[in-house]
Amino acid sequence: MFYHEKRLQYQVRVDKPDPQFARLLQQAIGGIEGEIRVCLQYLFQAWGNRGPAKYRDMLLETGTEEISHIEMLCTAVALNLEGAKGNVIDQVVSENPVVEQIMGGMDPRHYLSAGLAAMATDANGVPFNGSWVVASGNLAADMYANVMAEATGRTLATRLWQSTTDPGMKDMLAFLIARDNMHQNQWLAVLEDLGGVEGVHPIPNSFPQDLENQSVNYAFVSTNIERPENPNARWSTGASIDGKGQFTFEHIRAMGDEPVLAPPIKEGYAQKEQQLDKIL
Amino acid sequence: MFYHEKRLQYQVRVDKPDPQFARLLQQAIGGIEGEIRVCLQYLFQAWGNRGPAKYRDMLLETGTEEISHIEMLCTAVALNLEGAKGNVIDQVVSENPVVEQIMGGMDPRHYLSAGLAAMATDANGVPFNGSWVVASGNLAADMYANVMAEATGRTLATRLWQSTTDPGMKDMLAFLIARDNMHQNQWLAVLEDLGGVEGVHPIPNSFPQDLENQSVNYAFVSTNIERPENPNARWSTGASIDGKGQFTFEHIRAMGDEPVLAPPIKEGYAQKEQQLDKIL
Amino acid sequence: MFYHEKRLQYQVRVDKPDPQFARLLQQAIGGIEGEIRVCLQYLFQAWGNRGPAKYRDMLLETGTEEISHIEMLCTAVALNLEGAKGNVIDQVVSENPVVEQIMGGMDPRHYLSAGLAAMATDANGVPFNGSWVVASGNLAADMYANVMAEATGRTLATRLWQSTTDPGMKDMLAFLIARDNMHQNQWLAVLEDLGGVEGVHPIPNSFPQDLENQSVNYAFVSTNIERPENPNARWSTGASIDGKGQFTFEHIRAMGDEPVLAPPIKEGYAQKEQQLDKIL
Amino acid sequence: MFYHEKRLQYQVRVDKPDPQFARLLQQAIGGIEGEIRVCLQYLFQAWGNRGPAKYRDMLLETGTEEISHIEMLCTAVALNLEGAKGNVIDQVVSENPVVEQIMGGMDPRHYLSAGLAAMATDANGVPFNGSWVVASGNLAADMYANVMAEATGRTLATRLWQSTTDPGMKDMLAFLIARDNMHQNQWLAVLEDLGGVEGVHPIPNSFPQDLENQSVNYAFVSTNIERPENPNARWSTGASIDGKGQFTFEHIRAMGDEPVLAPPIKEGYAQKEQQLDKIL
Amino acid sequence: MFYHEKRLQYQVRVDKPDPQFARLLQQAIGGIEGEIRVCLQYLFQAWGNRGPAKYRDMLLETGTEEISHIEMLCTAVALNLEGAKGNVIDQVVSENPVVEQIMGGMDPRHYLSAGLAAMATDANGVPFNGSWVVASGNLAADMYANVMAEATGRTLATRLWQSTTDPGMKDMLAFLIARDNMHQNQWLAVLEDLGGVEGVHPIPNSFPQDLENQSVNYAFVSTNIERPENPNARWSTGASIDGKGQFTFEHIRAMGDEPVLAPPIKEGYAQKEQQLDKIL
Amino acid sequence: MFYHEKRLQYQVRVDKPDPQFARLLQQAIGGIEGEIRVCLQYLFQAWGNRGPAKYRDMLLETGTEEISHIEMLCTAVALNLEGAKGNVIDQVVSENPVVEQIMGGMDPRHYLSAGLAAMATDANGVPFNGSWVVASGNLAADMYANVMAEATGRTLATRLWQSTTDPGMKDMLAFLIARDNMHQNQWLAVLEDLGGVEGVHPIPNSFPQDLENQSVNYAFVSTNIERPENPNARWSTGASIDGKGQFTFEHIRAMGDEPVLAPPIKEGYAQKEQQLDKIL
Repeated sequence: MFYHEKRLQYQVRVDKPDPQFARLLQQAIGGIEGEIRVCLQYLFQAWGNRGPAKYRDMLLETGTEEISHIEMLCTAVALNLEGAKGNVIDQVVSENPVVEQIMGGMDPRHYLSAGLAAMATDANGVPFNGSWVVASGNLAADMYANVMAEATGRTLATRLWQSTTDPGMKDMLAFLIARDNMHQNQWLAVLEDLGGVEGVHPIPNSFPQDLENQSVNYAFVSTNIERPENPNARWSTGASIDGKGQFTFEHIRAMGDEPVLAPPIKEGYAQKEQQLDKIL
Repeated sequence: MFYHEKRLQYQVRVDKPDPQFARLLQQAIGGIEGEIRVCLQYLFQAWGNRGPAKYRDMLLETGTEEISHIEMLCTAVALNLEGAKGNVIDQVVSENPVVEQIMGGMDPRHYLSAGLAAMATDANGVPFNGSWVVASGNLAADMYANVMAEATGRTLATRLWQSTTDPGMKDMLAFLIARDNMHQNQWLAVLEDLGGVEGVHPIPNSFPQDLENQSVNYAFVSTNIERPENPNARWSTGASIDGKGQFTFEHIRAMGDEPVLAPPIKEGYAQKEQQLDKIL
Repeated sequence: MFYHEKRLQYQVRVDKPDPQFARLLQQAIGGIEGEIRVCLQYLFQAWGNRGPAKYRDMLLETGTEEISHIEMLCTAVALNLEGAKGNVIDQVVSENPVVEQIMGGMDPRHYLSAGLAAMATDANGVPFNGSWVVASGNLAADMYANVMAEATGRTLATRLWQSTTDPGMKDMLAFLIARDNMHQNQWLAVLEDLGGVEGVHPIPNSFPQDLENQSVNYAFVSTNIERPENPNARWSTGASIDGKGQFTFEHIRAMGDEPVLAPPIKEGYAQKEQQLDKIL
Repeated sequence: MFYHEKRLQYQVRVDKPDPQFARLLQQAIGGIEGEIRVCLQYLFQAWGNRGPAKYRDMLLETGTEEISHIEMLCTAVALNLEGAKGNVIDQVVSENPVVEQIMGGMDPRHYLSAGLAAMATDANGVPFNGSWVVASGNLAADMYANVMAEATGRTLATRLWQSTTDPGMKDMLAFLIARDNMHQNQWLAVLEDLGGVEGVHPIPNSFPQDLENQSVNYAFVSTNIERPENPNARWSTGASIDGKGQFTFEHIRAMGDEPVLAPPIKEGYAQKEQQLDKIL
Repeated sequence: MFYHEKRLQYQVRVDKPDPQFARLLQQAIGGIEGEIRVCLQYLFQAWGNRGPAKYRDMLLETGTEEISHIEMLCTAVALNLEGAKGNVIDQVVSENPVVEQIMGGMDPRHYLSAGLAAMATDANGVPFNGSWVVASGNLAADMYANVMAEATGRTLATRLWQSTTDPGMKDMLAFLIARDNMHQNQWLAVLEDLGGVEGVHPIPNSFPQDLENQSVNYAFVSTNIERPENPNARWSTGASIDGKGQFTFEHIRAMGDEPVLAPPIKEGYAQKEQQLDKIL
Repeated sequence: MFYHEKRLQYQVRVDKPDPQFARLLQQAIGGIEGEIRVCLQYLFQAWGNRGPAKYRDMLLETGTEEISHIEMLCTAVALNLEGAKGNVIDQVVSENPVVEQIMGGMDPRHYLSAGLAAMATDANGVPFNGSWVVASGNLAADMYANVMAEATGRTLATRLWQSTTDPGMKDMLAFLIARDNMHQNQWLAVLEDLGGVEGVHPIPNSFPQDLENQSVNYAFVSTNIERPENPNARWSTGASIDGKGQFTFEHIRAMGDEPVLAPPIKEGYAQKEQQLDKIL
């Protein structure tokens, strides 16, 4: 169950509103690297968690924190859009500053659809998509999904930090960058708790590994037509990272035949010319 | 540049065609855990790779292999759909076995749209979505995206393995499960090559870490209204996983004020009642 | 800022797990009538609210409550999916009860992608889409969006109530149906507070109404080729509902000419045959 | 059955073509507030209408009118795009005026994909999505969906009106703004016809109201952690808007327990570490 | 401008309602091969048509006819869904026939979201997508898009015809199959009118053909690693279909170098390890 | 099975990087007219091909070639984005050239999400969508889908050619324009091989044509309310293009009645007012 309070988790201050920057911030709200995704991802992982409850409890803690981050970013968008009115240098169409801003790189829907507020979309106006919410039922796979989300999320946040000179915005982003750091460490800590790389892999570790094809399960397969030699890279020689095999190097080879499909069935209404004997 | 040959990377044999299983296999083709996603993801990472060329070369190798996996799975779908004709027990509508199969769990579009062949969709007929292709320009973030893709992909493959009793399909899936194992190890090997967990994190490691907010960058923040004590879990006490800080445990607290937005601008055509003095 | 506690807002009890019903419940989670939509919709309206703060405060209250409803429904899905194992009558493929359930109407991704837990999708596996989150910056328009969401949401909930015989599920749905009732009333109360129908319409009421085309702003326009007479319905005669005009009845008529577009520009690479004189 | 004539419902005149404004107009064509949505929405409601035929007839009338509005807007887009050639001030790349316009805020697909014509997308190029077409089978719910569509649609139209100084475009928009006014009134008239607010609510009014949970069906639930007092707002005290209850004010409280899910089933291939006894 | 009448273009009669067939019919409404797509496609092509008006006029004629086809199919869906109540053989859950039907292959949203009526989705509940509406500004390209739409559309219609034994439905589909035949011929007639294959191709024929790379513009390029000989197929030898060249047969060869990208810029926050000298 | 080599099929050279042009090139990668679509379309057609193997073999050849085209375009995008740093005229925000470029028309996600590389999206950042991949099981329908894809693709390529003055880019596009020419001819050659227009149509030609409604299968149906005379166009008089009928000209007429749907079922929870006798 959830509660709120009116204050923000961290101060959101915009010293000089910038409607173009508002558009960029949308990527951190409704983009695939954004906060709606991690919020729903951690909460769905919690709500579907099976196994030791401590992981579920932790996911609830952080999933809830992420709602507060969406809130901060939406507030930042709204404040930056206040700049859609005023402080315009070029006076060509000075009677209509909002329109000028749209022409200058602002998301037009920030005005047309939202009346100068945030939307559940990315920096190009593409809506948030629920398919991005990964909760697989396998805790280790989910932790990698989470590390990945925080890694791309922190990368996005640093690029946003780079894209503004506004001290308030830089301060807010420095907070979010720090939280993304913690969250990377947090999910890595669960992976350590689950046994570390050697204990965790291959994911899922509950599938009997002797049932996988033993001839290719640690082979780096080169598809290069020039048939290069083993580069003796970390991934093509020596012990595998999971400690359960030895990396080898192979050229791809066809272990299967050319596939042969049956002719079309009558009810499929292929062309008559497809109904011939399949060996032609 | 790319080449093909007509034979398959691994044998695809369907002993007893099963149109319902064809539907399930679609998840491994056009689903978020599927092969189109990893194929495009590795290739886009390669084509956009900046920095040491050895990583680009390796991404090309494996991205190309994944095309062969899509091919195997599409062949498997087509062969399983041949079962949409025949071997029907219930004879209620025996004059139309394809229709019976649709009623029994087959994807109707396998017949209606594809004439008994695979589609670029998931197990529910939802189309593949290009937003799933992650190539961030940060190599470590991308490697986590890849481990995550292979972890959820191998989990999916084991569940598909569980969902069939067909020896040919089990054999094909045992091959793909093995390749997913290798690929998990392969991307982990790159992470080791890039410095291991301590060298890699926080991602991106090129952002000066002293610019992130130092007060919250290793703090586990509890949002639980009951204000629990530190559980002394791996993620709330001791050295951080990246070796660059100490985990602490805190209760969430409002470091920001209640946000105050300006009244709506006239051009936004809010209701007149919103135009009042904002303090009410 | 947001908090959680571990208990649920209302008891979720599944007396007899039913994986098929789990699929139906997804419509109330990730469907257009579902709880993710209203949750984000109310919160985005709050975060972008301009004007009297009392509306923002109320939106925050209820937006937060809706997170608790998503949580209840996700828990209900997970509990119903526990029925994916066991209690199977037909023993044809009795060694694999999960697969049987998939064949019998369960969402296959509940097993394949989520390991028996809820997803951010609708009853057909179509992902939640951020475009459904309406926050227009006009408070009255938003309130109608909210009444509409609760009206279709309560209709969905009654149909779900009808679709189960499980006492626990019926009890949970009776709770949600009641909350949807309250929320319908709540948004209507805001509309009353904003001036009632006559004060609120036409939305936006801040656009000078004399600027709209006065000849058609209260005319019911019939497009029926048989040119029916005025049915003297509530919408074609008498005072308009907003009290600002009189309904009239008209047959549609062309007030514009046939449109004439310029020939294609050379740079558009139309066919040469399109480059002729436009009057042919 | 449907007919057309070549003339437009209302004159579409563009005095000074403006490719950037063409982009903005797309929101009124293929956006969620746009005319394709209301056109299909009213027609689908008509085609699925069950109950008194007079509502179906009226929905057909107005659904058909909306096709004429799509036509007007598409014509307006095409005419504005004629400005993609010529009247360019900055001569830096004067040999390629189309490209200059793209750089200046035009939708590049208006040139690249459509050859200077309208598309079935919104102002950001996001395609129209059929999920926006609401036809619930409950007439009152549908009427609220329609009022909401016309309210956000008219708000959009006023913002477009604000975004242009072209007299022809302002005239066309003044027509559409007027029609949106009429349509708001029209759907409200149906609601009055169906019994007015007290007769209509709660929607659906055919579900026996005594089956909903009586303890929470008129309670405003505060989720504010500071536990505020009843603000005695219209929505927290006094008679409910539907006349069937009394508003009360409550703080949220957990009426449910902490949820307990079963451990993962073996066939779900969770990590081994999740298979432990669930009480940890 | 558009008109309607209440009668249908062709009789829609359902002798024995079949909710499962209603689901299949959705593919012809909101699927990529469906009637919403061709309706909007022809109308958008008409509204954006530049060049001789006779093509625009014809597109308007047929685009309008397609609205009548959507109407017929939506009516057919609604009538088939009336079968969601009654005639149930298995009495296990006989107190709830709608639910039984959902379990038996009906689209659950036909009940949950639409109250037994059609939706703007395909047979899997995936919403119609505006990206399918092709109107390129090149008339010949558009005609091929139209032939393709009617070819896949007629194929779909024959498969639907095959999927029902209902005489009324077969009669309606025989009508639609005939119209799809006419429409195939109609768009081919435009292509003939535009000059036939030799006059039309290559599309666009207004691009000076001598500007395309002359060494590869009629070469069949084999990517087969086994380097097969010219099969002397229609597409690898002899005059090209457009009469403007001779087909040749070549093996693919790399005409470009290995690409070399610059190292990442500092502002992109790649990993530090990517910042090295690019030759490694 | 697939192989690669490191060199490109054709040289990709960018003389003057242009981040705005990088955005335009995205349409040819992830847009509906783009190379991911044709690549997957040809490969899925090959993998599902039933009937003479020579068509499957040819589809594999060209599907594989298209991967090389995606690679070329992604390389071109990455090289053009190197211009996101440097050569900036306006020095207002000269400390941050990347941000300036975003403001000037660059896709912001090229920086924010991809670190200056290509994405699987179109020119507006809308993700590639698997629904565009057409493989119908009917070879002739598929060939028209392919001609259409190459016709809109070549039109796009000529417009891109027009949008740049960079000699390297013009050279690459001249190559792709030539390949699109060949591919148009190639798919037309298959159609000729299948019997030419008269042999191929109506598609599918395996459906007994006497089963389609004979009264309307070659009738041009006018929906124009002014009931024009037969224009004696190629599509309204004379022999049909498929040689199997005579074109006629008719005005649309209602061959069906006004549809009558049953009243709503109780379980659908329509409003009570809809439950009346349906004849009103």
